[in-house]
Amino acid sequence: MTPGARPLKEPAAPPRRSDAERNRARLIAAGRTVLGRDGLNASMASVAREAGVGIATILRHFPAKEDLVAAVFSDRVDAYADAVAVALDDPDPWRGCVGYIEAACAMQAADHGFADVLTTTFPSAKEMEKRRGEAYEAMVRLIDRAKATGRLREDFDPSDLVLIHMANAGVVNATGEAAPDAWRRVVAPFVQSLEAPARGPLPASPEHDALYRAMLRAGPQGATSPKQREGD
Amino acid sequence: MTPGARPLKEPAAPPRRSDAERNRARLIAAGRTVLGRDGLNASMASVAREAGVGIATILRHFPAKEDLVAAVFSDRVDAYADAVAVALDDPDPWRGCVGYIEAACAMQAADHGFADVLTTTFPSAKEMEKRRGEAYEAMVRLIDRAKATGRLREDFDPSDLVLIHMANAGVVNATGEAAPDAWRRVVAPFVQSLEAPARGPLPASPEHDALYRAMLRAGPQGATSPKQREGD
Repeated sequence: MTPGARPLKEPAAPPRRSDAERNRARLIAAGRTVLGRDGLNASMASVAREAGVGIATILRHFPAKEDLVAAVFSDRVDAYADAVAVALDDPDPWRGCVGYIEAACAMQAADHGFADVLTTTFPSAKEMEKRRGEAYEAMVRLIDRAKATGRLREDFDPSDLVLIHMANAGVVNATGEAAPDAWRRVVAPFVQSLEAPARGPLPASPEHDALYRAMLRAGPQGATSPKQREGD
Repeated sequence: MTPGARPLKEPAAPPRRSDAERNRARLIAAGRTVLGRDGLNASMASVAREAGVGIATILRHFPAKEDLVAAVFSDRVDAYADAVAVALDDPDPWRGCVGYIEAACAMQAADHGFADVLTTTFPSAKEMEKRRGEAYEAMVRLIDRAKATGRLREDFDPSDLVLIHMANAGVVNATGEAAPDAWRRVVAPFVQSLEAPARGPLPASPEHDALYRAMLRAGPQGATSPKQREGD
């Protein structure tokens, strides 16, 4: 900057805090676009590029990709938790349970980044994990209620919801814009198979710890590695 | 090389063609390891590194990732086509059809690279696509046979097999070694839902062209882009 430019520029420059806030909002909007389009494996560098800021700026706001993911998807996680609450209010427990599965799968289809968020755990994103934990407990109640009516098969396990979301993410990510409703064709027969009486036994569910490790594993691998920090 | 070193080295050096063959075999073995572990999005550079050769060497043998994928998975595609033939030989068409779906999903679980190959089309890998096309035609016969017995629901479509493979790849890729049998818990209820009488209607299948575009889209994106060619 030339000395002469300073007096001209200073009055126009917004206070520093406001700059930071604007950048943060811009980064969250860019994260929504990029993670929604490319999934959680999108790099921090590509989000920074979309936002028109440097990699140093994004890392100042979100030191790890988990922090960005939590900021971008907090409203989706809230909507997801709300959907469980709505389902619990349905006077028909079976309809509530089935409707919830379809609604949650539709949320995945509407946002590919969120499709992966639903099957991934982010231990350091405390607030998001708290909301997810609450939603999970409500889901367990939803399932128990539907079983009590006799319409949901007895061997259905809450972990099956995680697995159908992994399956649905597979369809949604593979088909994308080319066949945006294809996922319904897989979720519908799955839901039909849930109605009692079951047509056959199911193989054992994965152990709780094993599924948790899988949900950790599905996270943005190497998100905070030096390579990702430096570029794309 | 110093002039004095030449007479010592020449007799030990194998003929050039043999070097090339050895490198090719090493690259295919490395491709099997890396694509099996990381899926089709693994970079050519990481395969070259695994093989202990430079990026120039891998590109001399396999100018595009499709070429490497075809070389690595040709035996898997053969095994897959053979599984359809075995299923067609089953005197019980329903058992043949269901057994085939489970066997093909198990092949995906055993090899994550192949999990994606099954739902991806590689237009330039002519021989592999020819085998896949033959397998597809055999599958259509398998499905027709099972419907003719009245045990397979009438609205089942051959494209549903592509979709269940996309769903299964989602589970297999997300759970991996953490929960290696979790996929069975999703495939089993899907298969149960296929038995007639159907418990409800299914949403429309995606159009043939839309699914084809999805299978193109699932391919190794940017596999032959300069970025992938230069590094990881």
